[in-house]
Amino acid sequence: MKKIIIVGGVAGGATAAARLRRLDEKSHIVLFERGEHVSFANCGLPYYIGETIKDRNKLFVQTVEGMSRKFNLDIRNLTEVRKIDRENKTVEVKNLQTGETYEESYDALILSPGAKPIFPPIAGINEADNIFTLRNIPDTDKIKTYVDETKPKKAVVIGGGFIGLEMAENLVDRGIHVTLVEMAKQVMAPLDVEMAAIVHRHLKEKGVHLILEDGVKAFEDNGMKIVLNSGKELTTDMTMLSIGVKPENSLAADAGLDIGERGGIKVNEYLQTNDPAIFALGDAIEVTDYINGQPAMIPLAGPANRQGRIVANNVYGKNQVYKGTLGTGIAKVFDLTVATTGNNEKVLSQKGMAYQVAHVHPASHAGYYPGASPIALKLIFDGKSGEIYGAQAVGVDGVDKRMDVIATAIKGKLTVHDLTEIELSYAPPFSSAKDPVNMAGYVASNMIDDGIETVQWHEIDQIIADGGILIDVREPVEREAGFIAGSINIPLGEIRDRLDEIPKDQTIYVTCQVGLRGYLATRILTANGYQAKNLDGGWKTYSTVFHSN
Amino acid sequence: MKKIIIVGGVAGGATAAARLRRLDEKSHIVLFERGEHVSFANCGLPYYIGETIKDRNKLFVQTVEGMSRKFNLDIRNLTEVRKIDRENKTVEVKNLQTGETYEESYDALILSPGAKPIFPPIAGINEADNIFTLRNIPDTDKIKTYVDETKPKKAVVIGGGFIGLEMAENLVDRGIHVTLVEMAKQVMAPLDVEMAAIVHRHLKEKGVHLILEDGVKAFEDNGMKIVLNSGKELTTDMTMLSIGVKPENSLAADAGLDIGERGGIKVNEYLQTNDPAIFALGDAIEVTDYINGQPAMIPLAGPANRQGRIVANNVYGKNQVYKGTLGTGIAKVFDLTVATTGNNEKVLSQKGMAYQVAHVHPASHAGYYPGASPIALKLIFDGKSGEIYGAQAVGVDGVDKRMDVIATAIKGKLTVHDLTEIELSYAPPFSSAKDPVNMAGYVASNMIDDGIETVQWHEIDQIIADGGILIDVREPVEREAGFIAGSINIPLGEIRDRLDEIPKDQTIYVTCQVGLRGYLATRILTANGYQAKNLDGGWKTYSTVFHSN
Repeated sequence: MKKIIIVGGVAGGATAAARLRRLDEKSHIVLFERGEHVSFANCGLPYYIGETIKDRNKLFVQTVEGMSRKFNLDIRNLTEVRKIDRENKTVEVKNLQTGETYEESYDALILSPGAKPIFPPIAGINEADNIFTLRNIPDTDKIKTYVDETKPKKAVVIGGGFIGLEMAENLVDRGIHVTLVEMAKQVMAPLDVEMAAIVHRHLKEKGVHLILEDGVKAFEDNGMKIVLNSGKELTTDMTMLSIGVKPENSLAADAGLDIGERGGIKVNEYLQTNDPAIFALGDAIEVTDYINGQPAMIPLAGPANRQGRIVANNVYGKNQVYKGTLGTGIAKVFDLTVATTGNNEKVLSQKGMAYQVAHVHPASHAGYYPGASPIALKLIFDGKSGEIYGAQAVGVDGVDKRMDVIATAIKGKLTVHDLTEIELSYAPPFSSAKDPVNMAGYVASNMIDDGIETVQWHEIDQIIADGGILIDVREPVEREAGFIAGSINIPLGEIRDRLDEIPKDQTIYVTCQVGLRGYLATRILTANGYQAKNLDGGWKTYSTVFHSN
Repeated sequence: MKKIIIVGGVAGGATAAARLRRLDEKSHIVLFERGEHVSFANCGLPYYIGETIKDRNKLFVQTVEGMSRKFNLDIRNLTEVRKIDRENKTVEVKNLQTGETYEESYDALILSPGAKPIFPPIAGINEADNIFTLRNIPDTDKIKTYVDETKPKKAVVIGGGFIGLEMAENLVDRGIHVTLVEMAKQVMAPLDVEMAAIVHRHLKEKGVHLILEDGVKAFEDNGMKIVLNSGKELTTDMTMLSIGVKPENSLAADAGLDIGERGGIKVNEYLQTNDPAIFALGDAIEVTDYINGQPAMIPLAGPANRQGRIVANNVYGKNQVYKGTLGTGIAKVFDLTVATTGNNEKVLSQKGMAYQVAHVHPASHAGYYPGASPIALKLIFDGKSGEIYGAQAVGVDGVDKRMDVIATAIKGKLTVHDLTEIELSYAPPFSSAKDPVNMAGYVASNMIDDGIETVQWHEIDQIIADGGILIDVREPVEREAGFIAGSINIPLGEIRDRLDEIPKDQTIYVTCQVGLRGYLATRILTANGYQAKNLDGGWKTYSTVFHSN
């Protein structure tokens, strides 16, 4: 009879336990969890604080008792694993309620300790009782009680990642004025900056005071005052620290297991550590980035659950390979949905990979059916093979669907050409005959197949400054809402008749509202012997950045 | 300079014209359209009648003038192509306004004539002025005017396909009592019957009088009375005939082009007819079914548009292959979304293909976040390789997303195993850490990998009648809302302790609410030496059929 010990009973650890039992009815499975709760709704915590989720009981996906009974598990919560003795295959554990310490032996050990919020040693941080991080139920209770009882008027959220943005929204939902402070130029690192600009604008519309490229230097007055690196000072009733997480690696490191550069426990393709009897999974491990093949830290619930199942299979010798993490992420940010998959430009540039970009702005469903809204969709791909490297989307509706389709396409090794051929469900309330994903595929395919050359939003100002000609092929009335300074207006319908106005001795740049008419105009110009390039994403992509700050 | 003639200016024909121009700025492109309008919102027509779309102008996606100018096209609407002279490469056309007839030559001819609603020679059908079909703007105007002016109280919709269901909903939206008559056992042929049962129940909840397995024998009293084959009589103020469409093939047939068994114009993989100068596309052609490789008629807007682009490419010698039609379809049916992709059980049985089925009933998003609702999702696959043959889904929310993901997975040749690994976007408002598609993949994979045997909803009654033992592993309180007659109750949490109650000398069948606990119980039983089979989809799938009629 096999005896398996699991360290950590949330997400991946709980999944591993359930799968282990299904694989072997007779094994002894011990699940140690330092906290009180197993398998709770960790992604739901901000929404309970914001009172979108009203019933605290809903946060408990499984109880210790129910899960023990269902899967015949030996669950020991409020128990911490302190040490691994690899030679004797035992762990030393401490019952946090009684203080008792004892040893437990294992045939296989699964580490699923997760990651903890970073809590940096900033001056004054330990003197304050109104600075919070959010990881588990006790954290949640503390924050909610603080909000309920002290009724804060102002809050500062430090860090504009997923949790920071979700907390900002949920605190606003509680009637609190929120200031969001982010060290980088943009919120949500998985987005590139022009996509994040849409989020910035929306945050401001919702009354969030957004401070970019700044960080906390010191907390003063028991956390009621925050001094930023810039010298700026904020007063606040409470502060959420959500600047990131770091893997809980001390147990593994102390046991001499290999640890990656960024602190993640190193595992092989079978999710096995350098000790073959010890597996690891979830936010604590270093994974392989599915796109660029490099080591990465990608703390997400979906991959953790998948890893849990694979580890269980591999404990039973199934040798199932974990193929790496794509990193599909999504956040609701007030009325917006923001989603990403694969690599963004920043990551690809850093890895030295060449890529092409296509921006499209299609409607979420047929424009003639009520409720359609635009989706800003960005596709990043190999300019030769059409391999898809990543995608980003921001919009009010239908964003999750398009990101899931592209994530699936990447998994199926579909190229941008294939994106034009996938048959997505179409009726007017749901999509258009050419779905936004098809559209992005067409734009990218046109670049590869028809040799359509594009220029990006961040390049065009300099081009014009250097004497380049930019033709805006929209109708004059459309330019009233804004246009790129220095562009000249020749509507698409007139361009064939007005070619004599366009000089042939230099590259002509073309723009329109979203890039589609610009593409048609580019085709007309190149067919007439011009060298022409289309502004990718048109006015809409350009103006998100240059109108948002 | 190439001269290209296109017959038919809606969907695929319009797409072909636009693409032709982008490929060659100098060609002469003549687009003949029998009707007044090109490229109108044909899928939106029912919603204009129902007044969800309020502005008639929204139905016109492109005007003749705008499209002519944008793409430099020679569009001749209200002009009918009467005859093709293949030898001389000319067509004979008639201007329907002036009556003038003339010839026009071509280098390449593209046929995109579409399909027309079937209008069968039923007794009394031609004497009535309140019997309608819906294909184009004039049809729409006629129906809407009739509804606006005569304010009908009762309507009969004949045919429960996409258009029939959409018209039923839109007529109900106009305050009309609707009776829906369908010849088959079920509405929406792309669904299998247990999935259609959910739609049946919903139609009844919405006040639609549903008559299945019956058809029209005669119209009497100028269409105010309908006699059905069963002898049943209906009185009505108006009738919508939506029993299907047939390809407009007479022009092609008269010219000696090959026509398929079901009337579709035959084309090769390049969408070329047996005359290499003539291409055809859209609802008029016979396509290859992407799943079973057989000829099929699949009249959908998405494929028509894709074919339009491919035909244009092939006119210019690009030899692009059309890989067949998967047939992803979707309909809004009141509050429900109903979507399908690939083949259903009926089609696979008919083609003699072996398959396995998995039913799941996951929530559209995390159950602890408000607004989650169940999705009935059915996956059909090869029981050995895990190749995905098709899927069907019915629910209130998130149905389109899951169907699009599965359609993309099929295109990427992903198996049911791969469905467990695709990384879909997860945050509580959008999904669960294991998305419904992942869940379906897990259930199917368990059948293949773990040898989990299942039994289907339509088999279990006979099994019990023959003395089979069915254990319902739900909690007693859950059975109060209904259970399968003859089942015995042993809750999952108790089964390990009550094995002595279960005989070992016969196969044990297991059921629960949705199939998940049944799967766990099946594992426990097989691990203890039993032969056990799980009821796929549990009570929820079983009860849709046996509680809906």
